[in-house]
Amino acid sequence: MTVTKLSDPEDWRALVAHKRKQLDSQIPSAWRLTDSFRASLPANGHLLAFDAVAKSNILTSAELDLTENYTAGQLLQRLAWGDVSAVAVTTAFCKRAAVAQQLTSCLTEHFFDRALERARYLDDYLTREGRVVGPLHGLPVSLKDSFRVEGVDTSVGYVSFLGHGPAQENSALVQMLWDLGAVLYVKTNVPQTMMTGDSDNNIYGRTLNPHNTNLTAGGSTGGEGALVALRGSILGVGTDIAGSIRIPALCCGVYGFKPSTARIPFAGQASGAMEGLPGIIPSAGPLAQSFEDLELFMSTILDASPWRYDSSAIAAPWCRPAAINQQQQQQLLTIGILGECAHFPLHPPVKRALENAVDALKKKGHRIVYLNPNNDDNSTTASSPSPSSSTTLALATNLAHANRLSFQYFIYGPSEDHITPSGEPPVASVAKASSPMFTGPFPVPMDETVSPFTLIDTLHKERQKYSDAWRATFVTNKLDVVLAPGAQNPAVEWDTFGWPPYTLVWNLVDYPACIIPYGKASKVLDPEPMILTDGVQPSYHPDAVDGAPCAIQVVAPRFHDEKCLAAARVIDRDIRL
Amino acid sequence: MTVTKLSDPEDWRALVAHKRKQLDSQIPSAWRLTDSFRASLPANGHLLAFDAVAKSNILTSAELDLTENYTAGQLLQRLAWGDVSAVAVTTAFCKRAAVAQQLTSCLTEHFFDRALERARYLDDYLTREGRVVGPLHGLPVSLKDSFRVEGVDTSVGYVSFLGHGPAQENSALVQMLWDLGAVLYVKTNVPQTMMTGDSDNNIYGRTLNPHNTNLTAGGSTGGEGALVALRGSILGVGTDIAGSIRIPALCCGVYGFKPSTARIPFAGQASGAMEGLPGIIPSAGPLAQSFEDLELFMSTILDASPWRYDSSAIAAPWCRPAAINQQQQQQLLTIGILGECAHFPLHPPVKRALENAVDALKKKGHRIVYLNPNNDDNSTTASSPSPSSSTTLALATNLAHANRLSFQYFIYGPSEDHITPSGEPPVASVAKASSPMFTGPFPVPMDETVSPFTLIDTLHKERQKYSDAWRATFVTNKLDVVLAPGAQNPAVEWDTFGWPPYTLVWNLVDYPACIIPYGKASKVLDPEPMILTDGVQPSYHPDAVDGAPCAIQVVAPRFHDEKCLAAARVIDRDIRL
Repeated sequence: MTVTKLSDPEDWRALVAHKRKQLDSQIPSAWRLTDSFRASLPANGHLLAFDAVAKSNILTSAELDLTENYTAGQLLQRLAWGDVSAVAVTTAFCKRAAVAQQLTSCLTEHFFDRALERARYLDDYLTREGRVVGPLHGLPVSLKDSFRVEGVDTSVGYVSFLGHGPAQENSALVQMLWDLGAVLYVKTNVPQTMMTGDSDNNIYGRTLNPHNTNLTAGGSTGGEGALVALRGSILGVGTDIAGSIRIPALCCGVYGFKPSTARIPFAGQASGAMEGLPGIIPSAGPLAQSFEDLELFMSTILDASPWRYDSSAIAAPWCRPAAINQQQQQQLLTIGILGECAHFPLHPPVKRALENAVDALKKKGHRIVYLNPNNDDNSTTASSPSPSSSTTLALATNLAHANRLSFQYFIYGPSEDHITPSGEPPVASVAKASSPMFTGPFPVPMDETVSPFTLIDTLHKERQKYSDAWRATFVTNKLDVVLAPGAQNPAVEWDTFGWPPYTLVWNLVDYPACIIPYGKASKVLDPEPMILTDGVQPSYHPDAVDGAPCAIQVVAPRFHDEKCLAAARVIDRDIRL
Repeated sequence: MTVTKLSDPEDWRALVAHKRKQLDSQIPSAWRLTDSFRASLPANGHLLAFDAVAKSNILTSAELDLTENYTAGQLLQRLAWGDVSAVAVTTAFCKRAAVAQQLTSCLTEHFFDRALERARYLDDYLTREGRVVGPLHGLPVSLKDSFRVEGVDTSVGYVSFLGHGPAQENSALVQMLWDLGAVLYVKTNVPQTMMTGDSDNNIYGRTLNPHNTNLTAGGSTGGEGALVALRGSILGVGTDIAGSIRIPALCCGVYGFKPSTARIPFAGQASGAMEGLPGIIPSAGPLAQSFEDLELFMSTILDASPWRYDSSAIAAPWCRPAAINQQQQQQLLTIGILGECAHFPLHPPVKRALENAVDALKKKGHRIVYLNPNNDDNSTTASSPSPSSSTTLALATNLAHANRLSFQYFIYGPSEDHITPSGEPPVASVAKASSPMFTGPFPVPMDETVSPFTLIDTLHKERQKYSDAWRATFVTNKLDVVLAPGAQNPAVEWDTFGWPPYTLVWNLVDYPACIIPYGKASKVLDPEPMILTDGVQPSYHPDAVDGAPCAIQVVAPRFHDEKCLAAARVIDRDIRL
């Protein structure tokens, strides 16, 4: 990787101005918000409640229909029948994405012209050949900025990366989506460094949360979160090394799924990190407005032999034996409940959402096992875990330990500074440098006297021990899945998100995890503030987050992605009845 | 791990004498070879051709029948019907293993009493409950010494490990085999260090090849190779980091399968290596007398949820959709032929076996693609790979490069010396210290000025590039599998095996690979010696190896274990018709 050192520290502003102008010029004038419309937007920033996209009058009613009333699966059926053209669908989503961009700064690169050209090709193909190009024929799919699209910049929020020039080739997944018939039209915003909960950088600015623009949209796949929430995308793809798919999903009230690593091809991603060192491995996965579309994405990609595109992808197909799916849907689940870790107290709306979900699931007859030691709720209808496993359980549910261990993985190796070379400053959430170290010491000795080899080996053993604790927890308690919070908090005020303990733990053990939007923060139901004084994690301010979406997280053991989604589907249904 | 430093360097001899006496005392006198029988053994050491086990008169005709005339699958059926008892089957295999041990020193620990007790339990259970304990009910399974069996020593050929005391618990796979109903009765011999092609150490001695005791049985799972070849085991389990399952299989003329890593649970293995450093990862897999039993092992273990026993096992089930299997069996395959790498010339019998196999497959109509650049055979009925992929192909078929890169992985990190502490000397094959470095320089810079982090990252990228070359080779040429030699040579004279280039390459890229025994070395058909002067690899001496088994190797992309075995089954059939 070449980093161009700019001669004058202020040159970065010129580069950014140039990039912004270039992107802005790509939005047709007919798709631009008027000054009068901008003036009509609500002062509280509740764009979704205000129905801002429809009120912008930029989309026709047919375009509003196409973008609002179908799942991706339903759109694909209509596209394949020729009931609607790829050009019509692409136009609708391009316009909606352009509006979303103007409302929330959710995009990085956009290439509407290319998308429409692709859509015309697909329409011609269908007419000429009488069949679709592939199972994603004509479906617009949005991509986190870290995916490389040939001919398009991939800066992942670093000004210094703007000098790299357009991508020479597609990332493996991008090539797959293309071969499967998808339409690519936008890439979406990320935080500088891609390691914070605020998708804010000096190139593309800050992505706002469409539920409330005063709140974060989450990160690092925050642009997708905002775009999907505004239905400017029906299916977005993100990556997740600590919660980067799930945090935007829970902040923006959409579904998000972090698969086990190496199932969705990851090759060809842009990042500033060294790839070869043992550490926490990111995985790519979907964000969507419906549960069905998470499954659509996973099954479509895994059925299409990712190993042909990426030698690091594990060539296991999507397993959907009819028997298993039917069983999951009809049978009752055994659900482990991972409650609050004392170091990371849950905000009242998050706690309420989890409790409501558990109550609903109990009423449906699912078996509930409380996993946190000393949880008073054990006395209700739930069975408690066997005493012999108490040590194992105590280790598994020790999220503070797991997070400090994860943090060691993030910092033990050398890291390259991609901010300084361009002269740009760190953004606020990066400057804040959150860490879980307020909860205790490093689990593994780490100082200059420890050789890298010893450190790697010791970290490995400690992680193995932790993974074993979760394996034993699942096996001993006969769990199908674990139900957990996705974060301590819903979307919070800008640059306050802090450290992500409830998502990162599942990256450490590489378990698939699904975010299901559920409930809302309410200053009426939870009127008392909760002030955290650890200096890292956000406090609960009832007025600030009133109306923000809440969520729950469903987790299954490593490589049980199919089971995770099958169980999440049951849970998603049963918590709403 | 604690290594006991012995006070007197000669103490190790006392420890070994004690261990040998203990093991010897566990062989009942009725199972001991007589002096007159020993005197009758052929001078050329061709035990199998001599039918030594039958002629020992230790097994009854019923026991000879049970150990010789069934696959494991067939035995399991008879056991489940109650047609034969677990005690009868266990007795037969214990006796045969005891004979094999006396003929070839193939065992390390053996525990016949425990095995018979287990067999009685299983018989009682079947009588009482009217059903089997599990799908392996009553089947004796032999284990490489590196598997831990509770209460049994695990020295892996290091005298210093004898001080560790009996294993406190079972390895993950051992526990699975137990839960599935198997009978455990023996562990089998390995080389000191487990990193040579000669299963020789100062505790248990040298395992001899039952085809010809003057030849190596291979390593590191050499004890299994000899035991299975003598039918003292119907199903053995080994591990393979460079060829350790496949080399004994090809040396001893049995089937062997190295799966992709993390499919068969590996947790709880004894070894002298650091586990956490990035490197070449070993995998566990079966050796057997029949192709069917390789599949039986893989499908039975993978159907039984290895993830429940080992958090590092990937929870993907054994995929055997009827459609795929039927297709594989009926359809014609596209088979890439990996021929000779100039640095590692094939011995004439190995070359002949490969050519005969290719001729037979061509006659059956399979599509053959020669992969080695400048291979003259391209001019025959074969299609040649597309020109655009010539660079990729040249990299993929550059086994010397792949082997030197692999060697770097073996030596870049710190290693602990487990030989010196006990005072024992290195055995001859260890002292020889074979390496592939006679073929060229390190692919990646490696000296004191390179930091471990940089080295790890650079090795990773170089390996990725090499893996990509094989991926592209498979995709571009639409290969189902690759057919390759398993080694340059058949079993060769003691301590001359050298470096294993044709097996190790598939560990580097983590591809599943299956050894199919095929043909024999013949001083009549290949009368000319071939003398290699690289100082590492063995020469061909027609008289010395006359009659030794030959083999071919079938390889599929990473995680295509099912496809590898399905295609190998077709090939195994079609090369014999």
